[in-house]
Amino acid sequence: MGCGTVGASAARLLLNDRETRRTRSSADIYLRKVVVRRRESALDAGVPSELISLDYRDILRDEDVGIVVELVGGTDFAGTLIRESLQAGKHVVTANKALLAHEGPELFQTARKNGVSLAFESSCGGGIPIIRALTDGLTANNIDAIYGIVNGTSNFILTEMIENGMSYSEALGLAQESGLAEADPSLDVNGSDSAHKIAIMGSLAFGEAVALEQIPVKGIDTLQSEDVAFGSEMGYVIKLIASATRSSEGSFLRVEPAFINRDHPLAWISGAFNAISVYGHSVGHTMYYGRGAGGSPTASAVLADILSIANGSYPALFSSLLTWPDLSPGARLTPADHILRRYYIRLQLEDRAGILAGVTRVLAEYDISVSSVLQHEVPDVPESHETPVPLVITTHRVEEAKLTAALEKITRLDHIGGRYSMIPILDEHPEFQVW
Amino acid sequence: MGCGTVGASAARLLLNDRETRRTRSSADIYLRKVVVRRRESALDAGVPSELISLDYRDILRDEDVGIVVELVGGTDFAGTLIRESLQAGKHVVTANKALLAHEGPELFQTARKNGVSLAFESSCGGGIPIIRALTDGLTANNIDAIYGIVNGTSNFILTEMIENGMSYSEALGLAQESGLAEADPSLDVNGSDSAHKIAIMGSLAFGEAVALEQIPVKGIDTLQSEDVAFGSEMGYVIKLIASATRSSEGSFLRVEPAFINRDHPLAWISGAFNAISVYGHSVGHTMYYGRGAGGSPTASAVLADILSIANGSYPALFSSLLTWPDLSPGARLTPADHILRRYYIRLQLEDRAGILAGVTRVLAEYDISVSSVLQHEVPDVPESHETPVPLVITTHRVEEAKLTAALEKITRLDHIGGRYSMIPILDEHPEFQVW
Repeated sequence: MGCGTVGASAARLLLNDRETRRTRSSADIYLRKVVVRRRESALDAGVPSELISLDYRDILRDEDVGIVVELVGGTDFAGTLIRESLQAGKHVVTANKALLAHEGPELFQTARKNGVSLAFESSCGGGIPIIRALTDGLTANNIDAIYGIVNGTSNFILTEMIENGMSYSEALGLAQESGLAEADPSLDVNGSDSAHKIAIMGSLAFGEAVALEQIPVKGIDTLQSEDVAFGSEMGYVIKLIASATRSSEGSFLRVEPAFINRDHPLAWISGAFNAISVYGHSVGHTMYYGRGAGGSPTASAVLADILSIANGSYPALFSSLLTWPDLSPGARLTPADHILRRYYIRLQLEDRAGILAGVTRVLAEYDISVSSVLQHEVPDVPESHETPVPLVITTHRVEEAKLTAALEKITRLDHIGGRYSMIPILDEHPEFQVW
Repeated sequence: MGCGTVGASAARLLLNDRETRRTRSSADIYLRKVVVRRRESALDAGVPSELISLDYRDILRDEDVGIVVELVGGTDFAGTLIRESLQAGKHVVTANKALLAHEGPELFQTARKNGVSLAFESSCGGGIPIIRALTDGLTANNIDAIYGIVNGTSNFILTEMIENGMSYSEALGLAQESGLAEADPSLDVNGSDSAHKIAIMGSLAFGEAVALEQIPVKGIDTLQSEDVAFGSEMGYVIKLIASATRSSEGSFLRVEPAFINRDHPLAWISGAFNAISVYGHSVGHTMYYGRGAGGSPTASAVLADILSIANGSYPALFSSLLTWPDLSPGARLTPADHILRRYYIRLQLEDRAGILAGVTRVLAEYDISVSSVLQHEVPDVPESHETPVPLVITTHRVEEAKLTAALEKITRLDHIGGRYSMIPILDEHPEFQVW
């Protein structure tokens, strides 16, 4: 169902590679029908006319259809398609992260009630088999943390800002020209798409149903190129990180631009690629890298789901695993005041005697410990004293609310600009290996 | 069976995490018995005395044992254990890459005849779920290539040579002190261990039974630190690469130290970590990263296999997939003279007029095209003319045998040292995306 970028690629794989698949698996899969709103979209993708249908009920009634692939996108109609397909006793494969993030528990339950399974490898990380890692390859682990670069559009924009010194809007323009960003790029650049994906991955990893509202989300759309450049100077690379970490106190999920050390593997992920770091108590650090979007890579994951439903391995997993969102308790969050992280701060201040002392006094008052300070030399001429200059501070680990309160107070001081930047620094996650 | 480093970690995971596992899967797994040669090794690992047995036949006779885990290592006794376990109707999990590389087809067939399955995630890449990627996550793809850094000991040694300018023997000494290399490190540093792993991965990826004899193997034990340094100067990083590539003409498998561009993700893998790049026709480039050895990471993969056998997903895959080595034809190799690659060459020559001309004349005679030449300036004093200086050349794509013949001829010329270095340069593999 659906013949857009991913649908067309999946249809072509199904049509062209049947003989190859037969040499690789005894499950013989073929394309039975393509449901679209306009016949042209399927014809353009090379789907033979006799396979095209305009009515999805054709599929539900067809006893030869064992698996329905929902690639329509959006949440309303797609939700109806999935629900009715499951109720008709069809397994469902979907790439629909928004729908899963919003209505996961209900959809999983519907599948379970009808004795079929719901597969969604293509919903996170495009062609990267990350859902399989979380539900199968790493199941012996207590997952401590996931840090993902899971939005290729944002990562492409950031890479241009870092490597070619572009501003956010220049880089967005280039992404749009290259077909990597849509005309309305909001869902990608404001972090929503990443939030959908970390909700799905965090739920599976922790065996907790994560609600989207539990994830504070900040995108790259308000990022200043000055901060990108100062970070680089200090050895950090800015990335849009979707993270889910867990301690004995609970879980902590976030989407935000963050600085990571340039030696960490995630710092190397450039352009439209995605990567997801997963830390388990037995395996330590693992990372999964690949193309996180695009028709052909995403269709690779769609086909993998179809094949493992057909050969029976996914249905067996689906019925025995207990970490699906419909079987899991709601996520218990770590109290916000127990989350301590390092931060990068940029203030604008006039180059006058005593200003820096004012800043450090307020930080001390809030018991915030400074790790490093960076202020570039300015020419010692009278007029330069009134031009605001950037002051960059990195802090030791501190609670976010306390730091925000201190910064609000600092920016009310005389000769200090009212706006500031505050970006978390994610240090290398420890590998809690037991032995 | 077996309670060495990996066996002890697997036993501890099985003993300690049973309650956690019950919250994650309806398959309730527990440790029934540990078979060892000496009781002490199991007692030291914390295995309760009543679970220890000195006779593996105890396990074969025990109807409550559904899965046998072979972590004895070696090929003779381990082969007997696996064969008899399969014949007794037990599923088998093994980390034994040497055995699988040597006797894979026979062992898979024995499993099939007895209606059980043989799982081996832990045989390649430690805790990285790479076997699952090849047999499940990427099954919709025709795999074009695999490039793996799959020996942590070698990668640790190379990292020390690159980053700290150590010689091979200094770095090996450090690896031995750190417990990363055994007293006899041969299998690791001579490339055999990597060859076992690429034989397994290549077989699965291509659906061809690869015989070890089909893989030319060169280790890092003859690597010169001068070549590591010259490579760095030219933007390359030396890695021990196990590769399997395929074209319409056949397959090409190799283990060898090779230069890769410092921008390629594999160049970033440092220390004891492993990574495997896999290129598929639909998914493009994907990479899998993690700890490739050690008890705890490897035990993570052992437990994953146990769990997916218990929940039924692996047996379903095992019986439907057709790319297991016992069901596959033998690998058809690309004719050697059709393999064209770029090479790095280092010669030693005296700094005299006409010597370079002699070198380039022979290369021209063999129709070998030079891509770049690097010779550092030497002081213009008479005695320096007789001290051999290194001349580094990189070639355009050329057949290996032809280049070797040219180099043999060059090193017979006057005033040129008889020894030379010749290291392939692996360029970024193209992503053959269909759409």
